[in-house]
Formats: sequence, C-alpha cells, structure tokens
Amino acid sequence: MQIDTALAGELIATAHELAEAAGSAILPFFRSQGLVADNKLTQGFDPVTAADRASEQAMRAVLARRRPQDAVLGEEFGQTEGTTGLTWVLDPIDGTRAFLSGTATWGVLIAVSDQNGPLLGVVDQPYTSERFTGGLGRADWTGPRGGGALRTRGTSRLEDAILFTTFPEVGSAIERAGFEAVRDRVKLTRYGMDCYAYALLAAGQIDLVIEAGLQAYDIQAPLAVIEAAGGIVTDWQGGSAHDGGRVLAAANTTLHAQALEILKTF
Amino acid sequence: MQIDTALAGELIATAHELAEAAGSAILPFFRSQGLVADNKLTQGFDPVTAADRASEQAMRAVLARRRPQDAVLGEEFGQTEGTTGLTWVLDPIDGTRAFLSGTATWGVLIAVSDQNGPLLGVVDQPYTSERFTGGLGRADWTGPRGGGALRTRGTSRLEDAILFTTFPEVGSAIERAGFEAVRDRVKLTRYGMDCYAYALLAAGQIDLVIEAGLQAYDIQAPLAVIEAAGGIVTDWQGGSAHDGGRVLAAANTTLHAQALEILKTF
Repeated sequence: MQIDTALAGELIATAHELAEAAGSAILPFFRSQGLVADNKLTQGFDPVTAADRASEQAMRAVLARRRPQDAVLGEEFGQTEGTTGLTWVLDPIDGTRAFLSGTATWGVLIAVSDQNGPLLGVVDQPYTSERFTGGLGRADWTGPRGGGALRTRGTSRLEDAILFTTFPEVGSAIERAGFEAVRDRVKLTRYGMDCYAYALLAAGQIDLVIEAGLQAYDIQAPLAVIEAAGGIVTDWQGGSAHDGGRVLAAANTTLHAQALEILKTF
Repeated sequence: MQIDTALAGELIATAHELAEAAGSAILPFFRSQGLVADNKLTQGFDPVTAADRASEQAMRAVLARRRPQDAVLGEEFGQTEGTTGLTWVLDPIDGTRAFLSGTATWGVLIAVSDQNGPLLGVVDQPYTSERFTGGLGRADWTGPRGGGALRTRGTSRLEDAILFTTFPEVGSAIERAGFEAVRDRVKLTRYGMDCYAYALLAAGQIDLVIEAGLQAYDIQAPLAVIEAAGGIVTDWQGGSAHDGGRVLAAANTTLHAQALEILKTF
C-alpha cells in the first residue's frame, strides 16, 4: 500500500494519541494494591487486569473517532473489520505478569499494518515516559532524560552478543532447547523484560531477542520499530514473524544468520 | 548504638546526597555506546564500568566532606576505617549486567550500619527517578509519578506469592535446587530485576526474593528498606543476612517461615 506524507503523518499522530490514551487509562491501576487477575486460561497463569481492558477500550475510542474506517485487531476485544486496507494491531498491556509484579517493563504495543505487514510501530512505557517509534520514515525514542535516533548495533559474533528472553522456560521443551543452544554461545543472557527487550534492541543496547508462542499483537509493533532501526525480525525458519509464533529478533543480518543457523534445526 | 533525632536527620540527608552524587556520576554513562566492561574475575562475566567507579568516587567525596569520621565499605574501593562506630556500605551500581544491557533495573545501594547491622538503607534508580528509603523512622519512596509510604503486603501462603530472583541459575547447583523447590510452590516467578526486586518487595508489589552469593554491600541497603517496610530478611538458615551469602527476603514472617522451611534443608 502506498502511504503519502499526509497519511504517514496522520498515522504517526494517531499512534501517539493511542499511546497517550492507553497510558492514561493504565497508570491509575499500576502498583495499586489488590489487583485482581482473571485467569484467561484454565492451564497456567495468564492475568488480565482491568487496566488491560481499560487500555484497549481507550485506544479503540480514539480509533473510532479518528480512523473509523481502519480495521482493529486487539488482544482483549478481537477483530473489528475496516475498509481502508489498514489494520491497527494493539496489545493494550504486553507483559501483564510484569505489570502485576510492579516492574515497569510492560508496554503498550501499537502497530498499523497493511497486507504486507506492519508499517509503523510504537512501544510505549508510560510509567517511565519512554516511547520507541519506528516506521514510515521514523526511528526514534523519547525518555525521561531525553531521546534520540534508534539504531541497532553492529555486533557481528554470537560470542559478543547480549541475548534476552522473558521466561527461561521460553515455550515448549523443544523451543527451550533451541533457545538454550543460542544462549550457550552468547556473552550474556538476561530475562524478564517482556516487550522492553525489543525496545532495547532497537536502541542499540542489546543484540538478540528470542521468544516463542507469540501472537501477532505481541510482535508487530516491536518488529516495525526494530526494522526501522536497522535490525531484522523473523521466525525461527527465517520467514515472516508478522503472525507471531517463534520469533528471532537481531541487531543486524550477520548476527541474525548465526542465530538462525542454530534455531532452524529446532 | 543510640541515634538521636539530629544524627538520624543528618544520616538520612547524607544518604540522599550520596544518591544524588552517584546518580549524577552514573547517568552520563548509562546507555552510552561502546561501554567497555572489565573482567574482574577470570571465570564468568562480571563487568565493571567506568560508571561504577565514578559513582563510588562521587559518594566517597561526599562522605569525606560530610562524614569524615565514619568508616566506608564500598564494592569498588574496599574498606576505609572510621572512629564513630558507623560504616557506610556502598554498592555504586548493583546490577552491572543490567546496566550494560540498558535496563533500568540496576540501582545505587547505600546503607549506614553500626555493630548490629544496617540502620538505614536507600535503593536509588536515578534514570527513572525512583528512590526507596527505609530505617531511622523512615519507610517511603518517591518516583516519577509521586510516592508514598512503603509497606510490605500480607500474602500468607506460598501458593499466592510472587517470587523474584535475578538469574535462573541463582548460584551453585545446590542453591539452584533450593530456589527451585520454593519456585515450584509459588504462583509466579520472575527474573532479572537485580536490587529493584527488593524495592518492589518493600513497596508491597511482590512477596519473596531469593538470592545467593551476595556481598554485604548487595544486601544491607535492601535489608534496611525491607525491614522498615514490615518485611524480613535472613539467610537460608534464618540467621543474619548482614554479610550477604544466601538471602531470603519476605513480605512478612508467615511467608518467610514457609519459604525458610524449604530453603533450610539445602
């Protein structure tokens, strides 16, 4: 889809308004006592808070006013059809376990996609006032102490790389084994950052993120931000990661190739 | 040691000045490109950055001016003797791996102790402007969106608890096994937060932190903050954790007893 300058500006402005709306909806709940988590799944622990729903409702209200013809895909309220060929892909709180634990490593994920995938992504952390924007000519961040351009780094060997994933368990046993095969090669592995790890990769702070079991709304915004910053995001076979699943995000193609060579055997 | 109101006020003001000095020294280095990490240990990865040294030097300069007769124990520059019976116990950057990865979960740890242990602790995260203070009548925090009193929560069963540790490996094989025996009982386990996990425990967001291989400067400030907030911090046998080692921090004595019963068999 061809996006002219006026439309690009409108989409970026809309994405930022969505981030503001989501943050305002979420922050009254963050670190409030007595958060009650529903269990969406009978197996395992998948908390969904009132904040999650309030965030997506606030974003959908902005879109209904500002971009009523676009489609919406949200984690909490599913799919709404549109007519423009554009879809807003929303994760109102990525990292609900982080949210429940009081760590400011959760984020609001906002992407707008066409038939070829995400055009623009925003990863927003409203508590710390950090926002990472990539796509449609943008690759930049703002934070509590300034901001700047996003650019991934040039680490060229796994042995020098910093790797992140959220849970040491990663996913299934085979997925865990794949992750560990890369982990055993890198310089440093860290856990627990949720979507914030993708932002750090785009910002040139880390080199690799490996995850499994993702949904489209978990990855489309990070993917747009990382690619705009010079990185690469695929699945574990080197194919599209637009729909989630097993994801490998790397700072550059050289490093990506080395990690992929390991992961594709799993 | 008896601490009168005037001295208590002076110690708290000094601790906060130390935190300010450390933050100012560190922030120019945080997320700067090309950080070079020395290897302090021939085995493993233990980065020490210029920021770490600059932070401790800045704090020692404040103490030399403001509290020249107190002793100092710092991670980077060791022990300096004093004559007052008070020792400042400083970790200029707790969580150097977090720092190198760009995550704002590292902190500056400041404690002042007498012969019986820490009287006052400060856990400071300068990038996000979060500060947690406990002891000498204080138990409070400030952050980018306000602050308030610190109070640990009343979670009374392991099955309802949120547990943190920094690395899934924890320490030795036996220490890992001890950690995992508790992990298998709790509701949710998260990784990667460094000293920030202790602050979250004091702030009533999480319930347990289990670590091993700590030094005195890693735990004295968190210990003072957590105990001032109503929590309890011991080693894995229920004894003093003032010197580090294996540490169990809990939101309350009921929960502490349940975790201790498991850990003390390791």
